Parts: sequence; C-alpha cells; structure tokens
Amino acid sequence: MIKVGIVGGTGYTGVELLRILAAHPEVDVRQITSRSEAGMAVADMYPNLRGHYDLRFSEPDVNTLAACDLVFFATPHGVAMRMAPELMARGVRVVDLSADFRLKDLEVWASWYGMAHESPDWAAKAVYGLPEVARKDIREAQLVANPGCYPTAVHLGFLPLLESGLIDPSRLIADGKSGASGAGRQAKVGTLHGEVGESFKAYGASGHRHLPEIRQGLVNAAAGQDVGVTFVPHLVPMIRGIEATLYSELRDPADFERLQGLYETRFKDEPFVDVMPFGSHPETRSVRGANTCRMALHRQGDSNTVIVSSVIDNLVKGAAGQAVQNMNIMFGFDEVLAINLPAMLP
Amino acid sequence: MIKVGIVGGTGYTGVELLRILAAHPEVDVRQITSRSEAGMAVADMYPNLRGHYDLRFSEPDVNTLAACDLVFFATPHGVAMRMAPELMARGVRVVDLSADFRLKDLEVWASWYGMAHESPDWAAKAVYGLPEVARKDIREAQLVANPGCYPTAVHLGFLPLLESGLIDPSRLIADGKSGASGAGRQAKVGTLHGEVGESFKAYGASGHRHLPEIRQGLVNAAAGQDVGVTFVPHLVPMIRGIEATLYSELRDPADFERLQGLYETRFKDEPFVDVMPFGSHPETRSVRGANTCRMALHRQGDSNTVIVSSVIDNLVKGAAGQAVQNMNIMFGFDEVLAINLPAMLP
Amino acid sequence: MIKVGIVGGTGYTGVELLRILAAHPEVDVRQITSRSEAGMAVADMYPNLRGHYDLRFSEPDVNTLAACDLVFFATPHGVAMRMAPELMARGVRVVDLSADFRLKDLEVWASWYGMAHESPDWAAKAVYGLPEVARKDIREAQLVANPGCYPTAVHLGFLPLLESGLIDPSRLIADGKSGASGAGRQAKVGTLHGEVGESFKAYGASGHRHLPEIRQGLVNAAAGQDVGVTFVPHLVPMIRGIEATLYSELRDPADFERLQGLYETRFKDEPFVDVMPFGSHPETRSVRGANTCRMALHRQGDSNTVIVSSVIDNLVKGAAGQAVQNMNIMFGFDEVLAINLPAMLP
Amino acid sequence: MIKVGIVGGTGYTGVELLRILAAHPEVDVRQITSRSEAGMAVADMYPNLRGHYDLRFSEPDVNTLAACDLVFFATPHGVAMRMAPELMARGVRVVDLSADFRLKDLEVWASWYGMAHESPDWAAKAVYGLPEVARKDIREAQLVANPGCYPTAVHLGFLPLLESGLIDPSRLIADGKSGASGAGRQAKVGTLHGEVGESFKAYGASGHRHLPEIRQGLVNAAAGQDVGVTFVPHLVPMIRGIEATLYSELRDPADFERLQGLYETRFKDEPFVDVMPFGSHPETRSVRGANTCRMALHRQGDSNTVIVSSVIDNLVKGAAGQAVQNMNIMFGFDEVLAINLPAMLP
Repeated sequence: MIKVGIVGGTGYTGVELLRILAAHPEVDVRQITSRSEAGMAVADMYPNLRGHYDLRFSEPDVNTLAACDLVFFATPHGVAMRMAPELMARGVRVVDLSADFRLKDLEVWASWYGMAHESPDWAAKAVYGLPEVARKDIREAQLVANPGCYPTAVHLGFLPLLESGLIDPSRLIADGKSGASGAGRQAKVGTLHGEVGESFKAYGASGHRHLPEIRQGLVNAAAGQDVGVTFVPHLVPMIRGIEATLYSELRDPADFERLQGLYETRFKDEPFVDVMPFGSHPETRSVRGANTCRMALHRQGDSNTVIVSSVIDNLVKGAAGQAVQNMNIMFGFDEVLAINLPAMLP
Repeated sequence: MIKVGIVGGTGYTGVELLRILAAHPEVDVRQITSRSEAGMAVADMYPNLRGHYDLRFSEPDVNTLAACDLVFFATPHGVAMRMAPELMARGVRVVDLSADFRLKDLEVWASWYGMAHESPDWAAKAVYGLPEVARKDIREAQLVANPGCYPTAVHLGFLPLLESGLIDPSRLIADGKSGASGAGRQAKVGTLHGEVGESFKAYGASGHRHLPEIRQGLVNAAAGQDVGVTFVPHLVPMIRGIEATLYSELRDPADFERLQGLYETRFKDEPFVDVMPFGSHPETRSVRGANTCRMALHRQGDSNTVIVSSVIDNLVKGAAGQAVQNMNIMFGFDEVLAINLPAMLP
Repeated sequence: MIKVGIVGGTGYTGVELLRILAAHPEVDVRQITSRSEAGMAVADMYPNLRGHYDLRFSEPDVNTLAACDLVFFATPHGVAMRMAPELMARGVRVVDLSADFRLKDLEVWASWYGMAHESPDWAAKAVYGLPEVARKDIREAQLVANPGCYPTAVHLGFLPLLESGLIDPSRLIADGKSGASGAGRQAKVGTLHGEVGESFKAYGASGHRHLPEIRQGLVNAAAGQDVGVTFVPHLVPMIRGIEATLYSELRDPADFERLQGLYETRFKDEPFVDVMPFGSHPETRSVRGANTCRMALHRQGDSNTVIVSSVIDNLVKGAAGQAVQNMNIMFGFDEVLAINLPAMLP
Repeated sequence: MIKVGIVGGTGYTGVELLRILAAHPEVDVRQITSRSEAGMAVADMYPNLRGHYDLRFSEPDVNTLAACDLVFFATPHGVAMRMAPELMARGVRVVDLSADFRLKDLEVWASWYGMAHESPDWAAKAVYGLPEVARKDIREAQLVANPGCYPTAVHLGFLPLLESGLIDPSRLIADGKSGASGAGRQAKVGTLHGEVGESFKAYGASGHRHLPEIRQGLVNAAAGQDVGVTFVPHLVPMIRGIEATLYSELRDPADFERLQGLYETRFKDEPFVDVMPFGSHPETRSVRGANTCRMALHRQGDSNTVIVSSVIDNLVKGAAGQAVQNMNIMFGFDEVLAINLPAMLP
C-alpha cells in the first residue's frame, strides 16, 4: 500500500484518477489539492464519488505532500516544474500529467507554452512515460512525464512503421479527432454544449502544442531520422475519445503483406494495445473508460499509402489510466492493476 | 465460483452483463446464447470485450444450460416463460431480466404483452427482485424477476412516502425520462441517431408497459391501498440513464420537516441507494455505469407537493447491475461484489 | 421598411433574431449593440451570418437607438428596465426579450431577480406578449414583454383547459425539459459540453424564476381563480427545444370526450399553434428553428388526469421568433412574415 | 411556376427537398412517391411539414410524373437509371440525387455498386452537377447527376489547387467526417443512437463508393493529369454536417503566399462558396441547413503541406440544396432562390 497525493484535482483528469484509484488495492489516496476549492468534499464536486471518498480538497502544501510515496500532478502547465522538484528532492516520486516535462528541447517548450522552463535539470532527467517504449526506464524513474492524449494515439499507431523503417518518415500525416473533455473543465465559451454540440471542426490546424511532442516521439521511433509530420486536431461533439487516422507511404509496396504481422508482433506482449484484424474500424466507444489503445490497418486498392486508425480514451490511456499504468510499473505492482476492466459500451 | 449462463446475449443488457461479470471473482460465464449469431465470438460483436472473453454465441440448449448454477435471461418477453421452467425443474436458478415474471396479475400481463402467460405457476412463485424491498425472499428464490428500469427508479423514489403513509396515494405522478439504450439494439427507424439525436419527446403517454409494473410495486409499498398513478416516459437524446421526477401530496404539510430524515433512515443500510441533501439535483451521469440509485427531495415554497428526483443507469441498476446484485444475494456473495465501482463521470 | 435596433446581441437570442430578420422584407437592422464586443463584425462572432450582414457590434447609444422604429432588448435582466424608458420617451417601440417587464407584481419580481424594479410605470403598462392571448393589445403596445420560453410552452398547453374551467386549477403540474441553449452563451462550468452531454437532470426544482411568470399567466387564463402549480425544469443534452408535460385533473371525467375539439377550436385561427391528433407525441425537432408550438393530448385508461405534451423551440417561439411575431403584429405586417418556414428535421 | 415531382421521398434527402421547396416561389410540388408509404400524408411522416404540405405519398407512376417539368430522384442507386430514361424521353428534366449517373466509367460504377449499368447512353450525357465547375452545362442539361456529399466538400476544397497546377496531384489525402444522416433513414443497427452516439470511428477506410467519384472530379480539375487520392470517411456523433480536411504538397513552397488570393479569386462570384480568412476553422454548424460550402487554408510552420478544411451540410449543399441550386440554374431562376437563408446556429 503506497500513499498517493494528487495536486490539482478539480479537472477531468483529477476525477478520472480518483475513479480509477478507488478500485486500486495498493493505493491510499491521502491528499488531493485545489487552491480554489480547498475545504470542499471531492464528492460534492463529483457526485459519482459519493460513498467512495471522504477526502476534501486542500491547499497544496509541500510538507504534507512530501509524506506521499507518489504525487500525481494534474495541473495546468507551469505548476509542476515549479513545485515537483522540491518534492522530488525529498524523495517523492512524481507522475506529471501536464506538459511540463514532456519535451527535451526546452526552447521548443518555451515557444509553445509561452514561458521559460524553470527546471531544466529535471526536464533532462524525466522519463517520457509511454510504457510501450520506455517500460524499463519508467520502472526506475523518479519523474515520469505522462504523455499527452493525441501523442499517445499517434505514437502507438506509427511505432511499428517507424521502428521497422518501412515507411518514408518525411511526410507523415496525423488527422486527430477528440471529444470535448480534452479541452478541460474550465469555463470557456468555446466548450459550451451550445457551441460544441452537433458540430464538428478542425482547430489548431496551423499548429497545436501536441505537434512538437508528437514529432519528438516519432523521431525517437525512427532512430533519429528526420521526421516530417503534419498534425491537425478536430473537435468531436462527444465527451471522451480520440481517434487518429494516420497516413504514410511504404518505401516498398510489397511490404503491405507484412504489416499486419509486424503490428501484431510489436504489441503482442503489450497489455494495453490491441491490434484488430486488417481492415477493421476501431470505435472510440470500444475503449471508453478503458486503458486500451485499439488500432487497425487499411489499404485502398493497390495504393502504397498505409492507413492506421488508432483509438484511445483521452482521459484514460491518454491521461489518468496511463498515469496509473506508469505508477504500477514504478512501484512493481501488476501493470494492469485497477485498469484492466472492459470499456463501457454502449 | 459458480457457473453462469446467459440466454439472449446480443442486446445491450447482454453486453452489460458480460462487462460487469468480467470482474466478478466468483463467476465463470460458461455460455451465452443467440440463435441469430450462433458461432460468432462475443468480442467480434462487442469489441470492448476483446481480451476479456473467448466465448462465442451458441444456440440455446437446455442440456448445456442445465449445467449452470444460474442462468440470466436477457431475452424479449415470451422467451423466459417458455424456456426457464425446464431449467428450473433441473435445479438451475434463474434471474429473468425480461418482463415475463414481473406481474402477479396475469390478465394484466396478457393485455400488455399481447399473449397468454404460459407459466402461471412460476409467475406466482417468482420473487420481484428489488433488493431494497425483497432481499430476504431473493436469497431463497429460485426465480427472480428482475425489475424494469423505470419501475426501479420510480419504486425506490416513492417507497419511503408510501410505506410511511405520509402521502395520498390516489394521485401520484411519475414523469420518467430515459436514454435511447432503453429501447434496445434492434434495427428500428425510431431509434436511429438521426431520429433520436437533438430531439426530445414523450412516448407511450397514453399507456406504457411499465405502468402496471409500477402500480403493482406502489400498491405493495402502500400496504395494499389503492394507488392512482400516472406515468409518462420520455426519450432523451443520450444513451444511458433514467431520471424520474415524482410528484405526490403530503396529507399533512407539517410532515415536510421529517421527509429528509425519513428517506435517509429508510435507505441507510442500502449499499445502492444514495439520498443526497435536500434540494440537490441528481444527474444521470453520476450513476453512469454504476449500480446506484441516487435521489433528492424538493419543495416549492409552502406547497405540499413532494418532489423527488431519482436517477439510475437503466442498463445497470435498471437491468444488468441489479441482476448481478440479485445473483450476489442468491448465492451468498458480498452483495456489492463487482458492482461497487464509481460511476464514470464525465 | 422599419428601422430596427438590437441591444445586447451577442447571446443566442441575438444571433437568432439576426438569423430570422435576415429574411424579413420589411426590416432594416440598423444597429446591434454589445459593450464587450463593440467593433467586432457580427459575422466574425457568428459565421453563419457571413454574407448576410455587414453590421458590427457597437456601444449602446441612446441617440442612435432612438432613430429606430423598434428596439429589441436581448439583454440580461436589469438592463431593459433602465434603458428602455428613455427610448420609449422618444417614441421608440420596444420588445423586451428579458424578464424585466413580464411580471405585474413587482415585489415578486424583486424577490426572484434580486433587485428592486426601477421602472414600475412601464412594468404596469407593458403588454405580456403572448399573441394567442393578447394579440389586440400587442398591436397597440409601445412596450411588449416577450414571454419566457418555459412559460410559452406551459401557458399554451394549459390555456384551453383553464379558460374553459374544465379542470381543477389548484394542483397543476408542469414538468419542463429544455436544451442547453436556454442557459445562454456565458462561460459557465455547468453548461460545458463535458457537463451537459450524455446526462439528464432536474434543476431549479425547489423554485425557478419562470414559476411566478407561469403562475401569472395561468391565473389570467383561469379568470383570476387561484392556481396551484408545481414547475420542475430539466436540462436535456441537446441544444434547442423545450418539451413540457402538463398534468391536471378534469372536474368531470366525461369531459374527456370534448377535449380534442376544445383544443382544436381554441387554436384553429392561430398560425403558430398546431394541435396534433389525440394520442400523438410531438417531438422538439418538429419545431426546431420554427415558430410553432405543437401539442397533443393523452389519457391513461380511465384516469381523469389530462396529459398535455407541448413543444417549442426555446430560441424561436420561446424567444426570437415570438419577438418577431410580436413585431409583425405591432407594425401591421403579415403576422407570419419571415417566421413561416418549416422546421429543420432531421 | 414549374411542376415538380419527387421520386423516393421518405428518406432524409426527400424531407429536406420538401423543406427547401416549401419556400420556393417558382415551384409547385405535385407529386412525391413512395412504394412503401403510398397513401400516407407526408406531414404524418414528417411533422415539421404539418401545415406546409397537403401531399400524400403515392405509387410512382410514369404517366403522372411525366406531367412534371422536373423530377428529382431521391432513391437508392439502381432506381433512377431504370425509371428516369422513360421520363426524359417524354421531355421531363431530371435531377438525380442518387449515384446512378455520377460516374462516366461504367465499369467502375458497376464494380462499386454491384450491378451493371442499365442506361449507358444517359450516363454519358448526364452533367455532373457541381455548379462551381459546370454551371453552363447544367443550364442546358436534361439530366443532372447531383454530386455526392463527400465529393462536393472534397472537390470544392481541392479545386483551386488542382486547376492552378500548384500541387503535386499524385498524393492527395482527404480525411472526411460526416454526421449520421449521411447513412440515410433505413433501419440498421449500425446507425442506432445507441451505436453512433458518443463514439467516433473511421468506416470504409479500405474503400468507399465516393472514392471513384472524388477521383473523377479531381482528375477533371487537374486537366486530366493522373491523380492519386486517399479518402477515409469517419462517422461523427451528430446528425448533419461534413468536414473534410485535405492535405496536399505544393510543388513550390513559395506559392504559399498566393494561395489565399487564389482561393478568393476562384470563388469570388460563387454565391455558395465562402473562403474564410487564412488560418480560420470552419464549423459544420456554420452551414447547418444552408447551401454554403465554407473553407479555410492552413500551413504548419514552414511545411509545404497545404491544409484545407472544407465544411458543408451533407443534406443541403451535399444533396437537396445543391439539387435545388441545379434546378434554379436549369430553369433560369435566380440561382439562390429559396436557398439563401443563413444557417441555423446554434
């Protein structure tokens, strides 16, 4: 049984962490912080937690948090890089669900997040927590940078193609679609039901913060080759779910025959990646509430364009579920503990 | 560990049973039947179950089913009354999620379901499986008639008022609203997304099959007093969830002060009924995927109309979850086993 | 051709007024005001208006507005009562879509809206603009208080019953359901897509601002008899549409036979009220974008409870469309001008 | 005033035609056919049309239809190619909203639609009715093949790039997304609300019927150059709307500066194409119910990938609205008659 704290628990990522951890037999959630809601019972803000938690939101306090074995940061960017180092100096391990420690190039980070990075040492040491790529490093890490939602779906979908060198990495296209929970729980006109419902649109099409994170992961998978990737996110009138349709070109069309096997082999030991039969269409609802990334491959006629459709729940494999997966790895628990339930369909 | 069979597993109730039972440590699902889909892997129809079940749908076969300790019927009405008796004769216990054994007055049953009842003996013996009313009988029952979704929400909301005799039972109003999954998974124009989405309507306002079931339960709660109840269901453009707003008149307005305490006392030992503070507004999403019925009381000014808002997930406490709760009771398991997880919000 | 101004045009009611007036051959929209967005092109905020309007939002200015023949107020409560009197003193006619002039009892108004009324004279003179009740007075009015959305659906549904004296007015129940656009376009957590989507709940069940407005109209219809009405609104996960299910008791059950005829006769000359055949179920989508109130009657068995289901589009017959209808009446235009198109279904 | 007939009026395209034509001052809808619903009032099937049409569905009858000036076919594929020729032989003009006459290569047609084409002469003569490309031919045409919904959005978005020769046409990508009304109104499990709601998926990713139609139009725009295009459609949990995100490579990155001007010039006289400022994000709701195609251009950093986001209402510019636009052109009416109203937002 480990003691866990959550910093910044009022958003959708926070409540999802609590939902998942409620069933985790090795975790005792000791503290959940919120400056704005300090004193409020979490079950008053999130009635689905009534009967599951007696916790109240508290002011973030380093001394109290330092008593935890692990602290999750579910904060806006800029918070963890200021607050986590002091906790880590006192031995606490950290999984940061924000973007603070995801990018290795801190100039790129600064340009996308509009502030200088204040913890470059930890940024260098942080492990980018995609277990399918970095499981071994996660095990030992004191600081795990939990991947973004779109990057998780895109990285996993492109991995076998890039690692195998079968595609030309200079012109990759990732057309992403996300439910509205990805935009968080802040009061903004743009995510009102009256604005999002019954409509569909691209956003951030001229450049989105997840683009450099996507590129970094793809470059790593391509063993450092230069990667050209275009990423356009879209807003879907639903709450949860991301689908990414990925386009790339095989260097040799004859390799199409090997692709399905390549994917199945690459992920055969991965508990949270499910490669469907060739030509299938994964639905986001098939992973709703679950930590699974489900994907399938397609080809149109004799084209040498590889099409991959990859789906996740943005709040689970794209955030809180992957964070718990990382925690399980870090503390030597069964990796699937508390995150191995079927998705909720319908 | 008990052996369980499911007859008629291709509908939403069937997949929900499988989702819940996947995490039940005392249950081994041995068989799931479907005439139309025999041979198909359940995970091919319901991809959320990929990796959780290797089962295939099979033709319903009494001999195979007779090897089970418990069989759930998740069939259209008319099937269980024909098929369950033979299984029960061979010692199998049955939880019927259809309407076949819910009504004691078989003439009423026949008039609403359009056929004569073929198993009047079992209809008489069946226990109406609302645990909050009949827990003791359920424990011993061989046949449990699992309550309908609307009746569950309405019964629980009215129970304390009727049992206490504080209201006039002659003019009760239950205004019910349900997500579209309540209509099942059959191909019908009326439940297409293009017909249901972005629209709201009453249906069955001149009389719905759940009306006699509602009345029967209310009469029981009122200790046999005559009950006049009007029930109008409505279709909500969402998938899961029922809300029922219940209106009744206090005999003595002074009793308003006692109501909150009355409700809290009535349900204080019930693991799946949550009485919120007076004046709260339960949301269906706060019970999505959970076996909870959550309710709250309201009064407008000095009116003596009691308002109760009661919510459930129609597929869980309104169907599969309550069926598993009944199973847990019947077999002496912890009543909350596999159904004590928080709801999924958002 | 009349000159029209709109005060407070950035909300959903404002854009709906503009949408409707774009096709009105007798209206020249000269000004639309918004303090916060002054200078912005309306088509930049509302891209559906690109190509239809060259207008920009401007600071509200009495002198400019005074050049209009008619000014619509689409403002939060408290604005029109301060600003409209000066315009009216200069001869401008006003349709106020806010609640400022709807209630005759200003103490009640003050208690629900949390401020003293600052224009009691005009409150007394204002005509409550439900054309089906007050067409003649609207024609001559300088100030029309445009009815609220729920009150429109409830008043029209109860009118024939109350005017005829066939029901007991002491215990009426109006169970209302509205899409999220009724909550406006302000940035609030409670109306985010992530909060509203895939969920249903009652709100304001202990008392909603539309309750006194509903009661006032029902008392008028009942010729001053005392009226007891319970009104519970609910939030539907859709954008547009209100449905109200109305319950009342016939004094003499034999009158059930007369009801359909009574309704058809009452509304036979009303261009915007459609009485469907007995036992029908009006859908909100059947009036989406249209100025119609569509309704139907129901009876359950031999109960003497009259059930009426009444639907409107909250932004049209419940706001902007009815405002244009009032304008058409006030200026002697064909009453259906610009508001006689079919609803958009699906 | 022309006499118009509609063959196959029970689907979403049929009701949308009726909705639009209700306000057309030059059209008298004389007949609407449906084998299955003959005798039923159209307003009974589509209550939004109550008060607007007295028509009943009738059996399709060539003699009666031959009295029309124009007949719209809103039928499944295979019907128009058999029935329209006889009408055309009698002088009737035809706009076919089905796919029967869209492809010039009838072997391709046969392979995608699973039957031999029965009217090759008319297929050769038919004008593909995209007014922005073929206005002059449409004016004289006896038979117009109304474009498919996805092809309309994709063609218009790629047109200026292909006509100008600025891009490499060998690897175009069109990632399309559509609301569920695109799947029609047939009772199918796959388009139930419970299946479509709160989920997102690709479909037809290995090949969709609109692919050859898209390719044909792109080849024409590219003046016969070979075109390589990958098209993946997706299902969005909403009713109306298509968005297509289009990816292509500029031959010379310096041309990026000219693109916005190129698009604005290409469409400056087009009443139904709206080019938004560079970097905008068109929303499908901004064209809901309207005949507009709205688009915008994007570039990411210094990439030479051109991104175009193009939106239409699949039932309007993607079907019935474009059909009326074609009719207006064919009969010399003002091209925007009855289709120049603002979209409904929200």
